[in-house]
Amino acid sequence: MSAPEVILINGRPMQGISPLDRGLHFGDGLFETIACRRGRPRFLALHLDRLMQGCERLRIAAGDVEAIRAQITGLAHRTDSAIVKLIVTRGDSLARGYAAAGSERATRIALRYPWPIEETGSWHAGVRAGVAAMRLGENAALAGLKHLNRLEQVLAQTERDARQVGELLLFSSAGRLVCGTMSNVFLIKDGTLHTPRLDLCGVAGVMRRVVMREARRAGIRTEERELAAADLEQAQEVFLTNARIGIWPVNVLETRELAVGPVTQLLQAAIQPMLEDPVDA
Amino acid sequence: MSAPEVILINGRPMQGISPLDRGLHFGDGLFETIACRRGRPRFLALHLDRLMQGCERLRIAAGDVEAIRAQITGLAHRTDSAIVKLIVTRGDSLARGYAAAGSERATRIALRYPWPIEETGSWHAGVRAGVAAMRLGENAALAGLKHLNRLEQVLAQTERDARQVGELLLFSSAGRLVCGTMSNVFLIKDGTLHTPRLDLCGVAGVMRRVVMREARRAGIRTEERELAAADLEQAQEVFLTNARIGIWPVNVLETRELAVGPVTQLLQAAIQPMLEDPVDA
Repeated sequence: MSAPEVILINGRPMQGISPLDRGLHFGDGLFETIACRRGRPRFLALHLDRLMQGCERLRIAAGDVEAIRAQITGLAHRTDSAIVKLIVTRGDSLARGYAAAGSERATRIALRYPWPIEETGSWHAGVRAGVAAMRLGENAALAGLKHLNRLEQVLAQTERDARQVGELLLFSSAGRLVCGTMSNVFLIKDGTLHTPRLDLCGVAGVMRRVVMREARRAGIRTEERELAAADLEQAQEVFLTNARIGIWPVNVLETRELAVGPVTQLLQAAIQPMLEDPVDA
Repeated sequence: MSAPEVILINGRPMQGISPLDRGLHFGDGLFETIACRRGRPRFLALHLDRLMQGCERLRIAAGDVEAIRAQITGLAHRTDSAIVKLIVTRGDSLARGYAAAGSERATRIALRYPWPIEETGSWHAGVRAGVAAMRLGENAALAGLKHLNRLEQVLAQTERDARQVGELLLFSSAGRLVCGTMSNVFLIKDGTLHTPRLDLCGVAGVMRRVVMREARRAGIRTEERELAAADLEQAQEVFLTNARIGIWPVNVLETRELAVGPVTQLLQAAIQPMLEDPVDA
């Protein structure tokens, strides 16, 4: 079991959140899941950047980013390995109904969880992946955000667990490849690294951003673009990313076996030091 | 202001909900908004029917429906006019991550709000409506459910308020007419009542169901089907429904003036007694 060891609500250890919170009523908020190693959060600047951009798009007044940074740094301090989850909601509904008044005060919930028991071997040997039957809705206004409307991911993980695979890849209602249930997806075709554009759907993962940066640094041609089922079928390498797992190669996609190829291995080698010994960048 | 007068969490007056609740983390739950008049909830059987069907689809163990019925009836008792909002979430996350363990215990939050200040005249004279720029995502697994993932509605109401109209009509990403920001939509074309199918998107409203039932009883030809922008343009009458407002005619759609026509008036006359003197059906 992995219940949180610490829970802070607006910076204080409290037992409950308001039953009027718009995070509860409407999923009106955002979150970050920050992996911490050796007492330090990984890629904290990137997490805070995404959070603040999300708050701006949803017009949520998140408050002082330095206070948030200090809180997360403090929660990571003196832990060996931990996961900090930060939820920022628009705050209490001042009236019934969907409309935001604009004068709400954000609620900030920080939870520190123990590092989960690892799927040992996934980093090197890879994981089996399938393609989900469920398709994701497309909405440009929400695309890219790590918002609190996550029922699609809940249902996708139910499907994944029923299928007994390590991850399921999801397409959108219009047939575009988007992501995994808890990960972003990359594929290598003819030496080029491809990852789906996230302008209509999906979460713009922090590890996705790191991997694209490192790929460009390594001189690998990298494209964010619209990808379809055919692109996946033609891929020589496929891998998954998120803040905790880093990079997981896909070794079987549905029934097709895939090698853990050279581009995947090169990118793993580039990011591994940053995962084990975090720097704030 | 319309803060709730009563808040019950799992049947008891409590100040806070658990910061581990999956309703907060993922919007993993459902809700009902039940209008009450003369001490009695309107269409309670239909609200409970939808709630239980939603719980079944999401595999949330809502608990005893008779206890829920008694609670809502009790909250309505001795009020003249009130709105009861019931939220049922999957309960606390037993571990971090999207996946549900299957053994969660649902959280039930009941809030009683004062009846809001009425938009007097909307029932008879109608409201101005526009068409939203934002489009709704399509996902068959969530379509019809009154679930807690409501960021699209929050953003749609921001757009509605900026446009200064009574309601905005929403199309899906694929161009299908779906609903209003807080209502279902009906249109009358050549004597036939049409309302969008909700198999890919939208909430299956209780008042929508009542209106379809009453239309069939009155011998009005009624069709649930896929509707596009052209259908809306060709409609002779357009009206909006929800549990609180009943039926609001649309008197201006974007720039086109619309009469409050005979079918709309007939249906208003049929449902008005049920709104003012609720019976449980």
